[in-house]
Amino acid sequence: MVAIANLLSDETVVRPDGRAADEIRPVRITRGWTNAPEGSVLIECGDTRVLCTASFSPTLPRWRKESGLGWVTAEYAMLPRATSERTARESVRGKVGGRTQEISRLIGRCLRGIVDMKALGENQIQIDCDVLQADGGTRTASVTGAYIALADALSWAESKGHIKSAEKVLGSQVSAVSVGVIDGKPMLDLPYVEDSRAMTDMNVAMTGSGEFIEIQGTAEHRPFDREELGVLLDLATKGNKELQTLQRKALRAELGQVVTSQQAKE
Amino acid sequence: MVAIANLLSDETVVRPDGRAADEIRPVRITRGWTNAPEGSVLIECGDTRVLCTASFSPTLPRWRKESGLGWVTAEYAMLPRATSERTARESVRGKVGGRTQEISRLIGRCLRGIVDMKALGENQIQIDCDVLQADGGTRTASVTGAYIALADALSWAESKGHIKSAEKVLGSQVSAVSVGVIDGKPMLDLPYVEDSRAMTDMNVAMTGSGEFIEIQGTAEHRPFDREELGVLLDLATKGNKELQTLQRKALRAELGQVVTSQQAKE
Amino acid sequence: MVAIANLLSDETVVRPDGRAADEIRPVRITRGWTNAPEGSVLIECGDTRVLCTASFSPTLPRWRKESGLGWVTAEYAMLPRATSERTARESVRGKVGGRTQEISRLIGRCLRGIVDMKALGENQIQIDCDVLQADGGTRTASVTGAYIALADALSWAESKGHIKSAEKVLGSQVSAVSVGVIDGKPMLDLPYVEDSRAMTDMNVAMTGSGEFIEIQGTAEHRPFDREELGVLLDLATKGNKELQTLQRKALRAELGQVVTSQQAKE
Amino acid sequence: MVAIANLLSDETVVRPDGRAADEIRPVRITRGWTNAPEGSVLIECGDTRVLCTASFSPTLPRWRKESGLGWVTAEYAMLPRATSERTARESVRGKVGGRTQEISRLIGRCLRGIVDMKALGENQIQIDCDVLQADGGTRTASVTGAYIALADALSWAESKGHIKSAEKVLGSQVSAVSVGVIDGKPMLDLPYVEDSRAMTDMNVAMTGSGEFIEIQGTAEHRPFDREELGVLLDLATKGNKELQTLQRKALRAELGQVVTSQQAKE
Amino acid sequence: MVAIANLLSDETVVRPDGRAADEIRPVRITRGWTNAPEGSVLIECGDTRVLCTASFSPTLPRWRKESGLGWVTAEYAMLPRATSERTARESVRGKVGGRTQEISRLIGRCLRGIVDMKALGENQIQIDCDVLQADGGTRTASVTGAYIALADALSWAESKGHIKSAEKVLGSQVSAVSVGVIDGKPMLDLPYVEDSRAMTDMNVAMTGSGEFIEIQGTAEHRPFDREELGVLLDLATKGNKELQTLQRKALRAELGQVVTSQQAKE
Amino acid sequence: MVAIANLLSDETVVRPDGRAADEIRPVRITRGWTNAPEGSVLIECGDTRVLCTASFSPTLPRWRKESGLGWVTAEYAMLPRATSERTARESVRGKVGGRTQEISRLIGRCLRGIVDMKALGENQIQIDCDVLQADGGTRTASVTGAYIALADALSWAESKGHIKSAEKVLGSQVSAVSVGVIDGKPMLDLPYVEDSRAMTDMNVAMTGSGEFIEIQGTAEHRPFDREELGVLLDLATKGNKELQTLQRKALRAELGQVVTSQQAKE
Repeated sequence: MVAIANLLSDETVVRPDGRAADEIRPVRITRGWTNAPEGSVLIECGDTRVLCTASFSPTLPRWRKESGLGWVTAEYAMLPRATSERTARESVRGKVGGRTQEISRLIGRCLRGIVDMKALGENQIQIDCDVLQADGGTRTASVTGAYIALADALSWAESKGHIKSAEKVLGSQVSAVSVGVIDGKPMLDLPYVEDSRAMTDMNVAMTGSGEFIEIQGTAEHRPFDREELGVLLDLATKGNKELQTLQRKALRAELGQVVTSQQAKE
Repeated sequence: MVAIANLLSDETVVRPDGRAADEIRPVRITRGWTNAPEGSVLIECGDTRVLCTASFSPTLPRWRKESGLGWVTAEYAMLPRATSERTARESVRGKVGGRTQEISRLIGRCLRGIVDMKALGENQIQIDCDVLQADGGTRTASVTGAYIALADALSWAESKGHIKSAEKVLGSQVSAVSVGVIDGKPMLDLPYVEDSRAMTDMNVAMTGSGEFIEIQGTAEHRPFDREELGVLLDLATKGNKELQTLQRKALRAELGQVVTSQQAKE
Repeated sequence: MVAIANLLSDETVVRPDGRAADEIRPVRITRGWTNAPEGSVLIECGDTRVLCTASFSPTLPRWRKESGLGWVTAEYAMLPRATSERTARESVRGKVGGRTQEISRLIGRCLRGIVDMKALGENQIQIDCDVLQADGGTRTASVTGAYIALADALSWAESKGHIKSAEKVLGSQVSAVSVGVIDGKPMLDLPYVEDSRAMTDMNVAMTGSGEFIEIQGTAEHRPFDREELGVLLDLATKGNKELQTLQRKALRAELGQVVTSQQAKE
Repeated sequence: MVAIANLLSDETVVRPDGRAADEIRPVRITRGWTNAPEGSVLIECGDTRVLCTASFSPTLPRWRKESGLGWVTAEYAMLPRATSERTARESVRGKVGGRTQEISRLIGRCLRGIVDMKALGENQIQIDCDVLQADGGTRTASVTGAYIALADALSWAESKGHIKSAEKVLGSQVSAVSVGVIDGKPMLDLPYVEDSRAMTDMNVAMTGSGEFIEIQGTAEHRPFDREELGVLLDLATKGNKELQTLQRKALRAELGQVVTSQQAKE
Repeated sequence: MVAIANLLSDETVVRPDGRAADEIRPVRITRGWTNAPEGSVLIECGDTRVLCTASFSPTLPRWRKESGLGWVTAEYAMLPRATSERTARESVRGKVGGRTQEISRLIGRCLRGIVDMKALGENQIQIDCDVLQADGGTRTASVTGAYIALADALSWAESKGHIKSAEKVLGSQVSAVSVGVIDGKPMLDLPYVEDSRAMTDMNVAMTGSGEFIEIQGTAEHRPFDREELGVLLDLATKGNKELQTLQRKALRAELGQVVTSQQAKE
Repeated sequence: MVAIANLLSDETVVRPDGRAADEIRPVRITRGWTNAPEGSVLIECGDTRVLCTASFSPTLPRWRKESGLGWVTAEYAMLPRATSERTARESVRGKVGGRTQEISRLIGRCLRGIVDMKALGENQIQIDCDVLQADGGTRTASVTGAYIALADALSWAESKGHIKSAEKVLGSQVSAVSVGVIDGKPMLDLPYVEDSRAMTDMNVAMTGSGEFIEIQGTAEHRPFDREELGVLLDLATKGNKELQTLQRKALRAELGQVVTSQQAKE
């Protein structure tokens, strides 16, 4: 495992897009990309492009009514031609596939993990993450973008008097990033070409204070040990910190303004 | 009916967005908006924003096989929060609604109306029109944008040797625009606020030579007579001509370049 | 276009069933064909045979409640062996096809176009058009037959005191007929053998005062121009007038009595 | 049980429609009622009216291929307004209900019970029984009518050379009738008003030689004993014999000619 | 028919599992096999193994509300690998098959046939019969086991004060068994190997007093006559009596104790 | 975090079932519990009871054909009354829920993680995990039981000559266990009563050599840090080791014999 722990300083690693092993892809965030939703964010991580919207509604699902608590739920989907081969629409096939459901549930849990349901009151926020272009990391980009849309929807709700304080509802930030082991080397933020070859693949959602909300690691092709896990979590921590800096910057920017990780570096 | 025929010169008409009765909304067309599809066009007509993609495939549906002919089909859908109220996903509801099916079929017919199936050979093109933001006229914007995506997919297919000549496949251009009667006054290119109040509503798809591919006029709220029909078709002819000029301009532009109706005027 | 405008007097046109270009098929209308529905009409246009029923109900769909207005909706379907090849049941396939939905919506709009929803009050009428035998023009026969079933259901409702006046609810009559261009020649009321070869195909629903409720023209095989459109609308106007005469005659006849266009001529 | 066994001669029984306890309802059979199917029969038993069609096809379902044997299958359905209250369409609800499936399977078994699959060869016959008007006994009317449609489809297939001998395929006749116990009294051929009050309800399908193909007896409201069963089977045997006489008469009549049980008596 | 009537004493009949023609398979009944349901019974008839549970609920389906009456309903299903070939899950296929629905309805009718709905009051009992291992006779084993689960759920409901008297709700016992004709010989309680070869197949549900609740006889392969029917009903009566003895014994046993037909004989 | 790291020796922790924080529930494993499947295992972890079957088939899904590789897939489901409240059947609801799909996919990945697809050859193994009784940890019990069923199916396939060596296909063992933080205290193997109160919840699948195949940690109620993660993984490692010892013991036992963790201790 020594070899792996040392990899982060290994200068021989050349990734297809020229990035270092511990470097995230260029990110672009545009708030207010569409005008109907209470929160609407276009997030681009490399060639992955996801439209995240947050819909505020004073109606709760039946099972949650009269609980004094709010609810946050999420749905993820891909446009048929977000991918290099056209994927049949789930509406036309008449059912939502397992992968879609799994990701929708993941996004919902990540956001609920930082929301104070009592402060939200008997209101519901529905997150929609629609992948317009897919190049790996669509679920983590969705979480990262959805947080901003959620924050905007809460600000809107505060301004309209639906909730008392948006700040109280959002106890923390949340972002997510993927990490994986490619040819034995741990890498941060995998595009499709790396993801499809990954022996181990992990999605890590973290709060602003660096704690974990969700860890999903899978090793269909080669199991991983405790030491590798440590390296992967280090990479994810680094990536999430950078994404969170960018999230904060985006939330301070004007609606419609594009905030990029390149600027963030400057 | 005299009053109506004269309306086009009526200076007292004030539309909510300040347009004249016979004026189309500002249009923006971006080819190559996503990079996976063989044709990918973002079309914006006012606040309506539709992503039109064309997927070329050498596989035909079973019933069409060994006919020596190609096929063009289309699917239309809206993102849940393209509208001011969130609409439940058709994938989650498990079925495609009647409106969606009706529009998908309309787009397919309009494109097939200008395609030479023999010249296309045993290949299929699947058009996807996904409404990212809806403000009326989504089906006509879809037709207008889809034509450009189709043209791009055919150029790609020619360059790859899948078809002999893209030009031969596309016998003509096609675009579409809506017209309607609002408070007794015929109007061109209705946004949602007008569309929802229209007594008569008509979608007109035309070829580059000014002939009709599809006329769909409906008068749930007040029937219309032959003279009104004439005025509406005049408006639609004017609108389609302008859209077709813009389509041609976009097809001469670079991928990624935004072509707008404002520029077109200049 | 001169050739086309002159066609109506062209004596060389021979249609497969011996009709003149501007002649509708023999029509037979039987009111009260089944006894459960509030309105029940068997309409036969040539070999096309449709059972149209109207079900009156004092319950509105949820979204329409407490509006003070009524609602009219329609569903169209074909028996599996109405056609020369057996068609799989939509119930067995688990979904309603696009063509079925498109036609159901068309029928609904045509009837709503002549109904005064305020006069109907908070009641609903559900129209069912089931094609027992199909030979072209099933959607237009459905509209024409459904109007009579609707009128009968309203008379029933008036007699039971559910509505004040059936006459006030029905502001006008509505009927529909198809027209098309076959081998360059405009024709009225196409049977299947003509319909499947039509270059242009149009369904036209008109009120008793000769205005349009719905125009659906499609030209998958050859676009049509303004002049052709004029000829087609002339044919449709002639056909609808004759159908409306027959509708009125049927509504004056006894339940169970067969009213035919042959008699109407006499 | 003595009381029950004696009931057939009990002159005090007055059925709502004036029939004797052992009398079937008036039956009307019209062969060739529609012209597309290979066999098409309208059967009317009292106010119950079912259109039975038989579609011959040289294609077998996959699991039956290369067995040297044919297949017969059936589907039953009701029009939404065949009943006094409108029933939602199964196509719109997206699934076929349990009652529909149960009856479809029953009809299929009854017909397969008299068909020589080897003589049918690798061909399939699909029976469709669509209830146009329902007044009890729709499943038994379906079996009785479907047999005639099946016989017509086989004659057609013989005339076209698809099978060698229609006679060899149909080893026997089959018909079905309902019997039940109403207020303790056994009755033959129940209309809806009796069926809904029956304590015991039984459908009996029999061959031309008086043997049973299917017995379905159910006693949700009061169990029945061996003696009652005997009386019910006697009634069913009488009813089926009369129906079979009528089936034979119908098969000797011209297409389109109406054969009735009244005539049969003469 | 004499040959058949005499068969019960025919010593030359050798069944694959060595049983006599009129002998049921070894039965094992375990009450309280799972602990969540109000009634939970594992019934094993030969190699057929069904888990029958009864869920008591004070909520009625909407159409039954405020009737003063209770309701009993049943659902039957098979695990995918209860059979020698794996059967696709109905949940994954998205619909419940016809056979499943037919059996679910049969079980429900059999239990309702012995329940006094007035004594049950406005409560519902949902029966679930899940086949863990299938070797013929799964529907009859389900009825026999479900009766015991139902009785346990009613005892529970009485102990909790939901109903006044379990005894009053259950007017009688009910059990079911299959009979059939194999190679011309009537047999009791068919395992799969016999069932698949049966010329006639009948399921008979009877009450504790020896009356019939349900008779379902089908003869796809060879019709049967009145005399054969008599022999089959004799066999069914014998089988049901033995099953009912065992049901009573099981209901007197401790929860978790296995009661077998072998013990019953002793 | 010190408090948490020390918890394993904290003697004040009292779990509802009296276990220590690092103790798994009593486990019972019965191989060959049903006789149709190639592998059939009943696994009981406390009150959780899952029937795991493995179906061997020489047919691959279409997309996998002619790859020279095998495939392993899994489906998870719960009986309606495995839970304290009855859950509606997914077959009846017409769709598979998100939770079910998520777990099915997890089980599939865990098993594929230890299978050498090349050694399996062009064969498929379908795992079915049906929860008969649920008391938390159903997904981890499914993985642990499914491994044994898979091993048995492979032995069967080797004995029948379908594969060369079962041993080569199974590179390693796999088991899974849940861990979680309850009231700030890390616990191993949570029953429902603990699981529903867990602030953090993690499922960990490990190979026989102690490496991870899958880690799924979720913290809807309170995020966790690196140190807590370490403690949880220690607990999971301990639990999985014990389960793997038991798996090996079960695989050496006779079919039908019950192997328990109590015995294992002895």
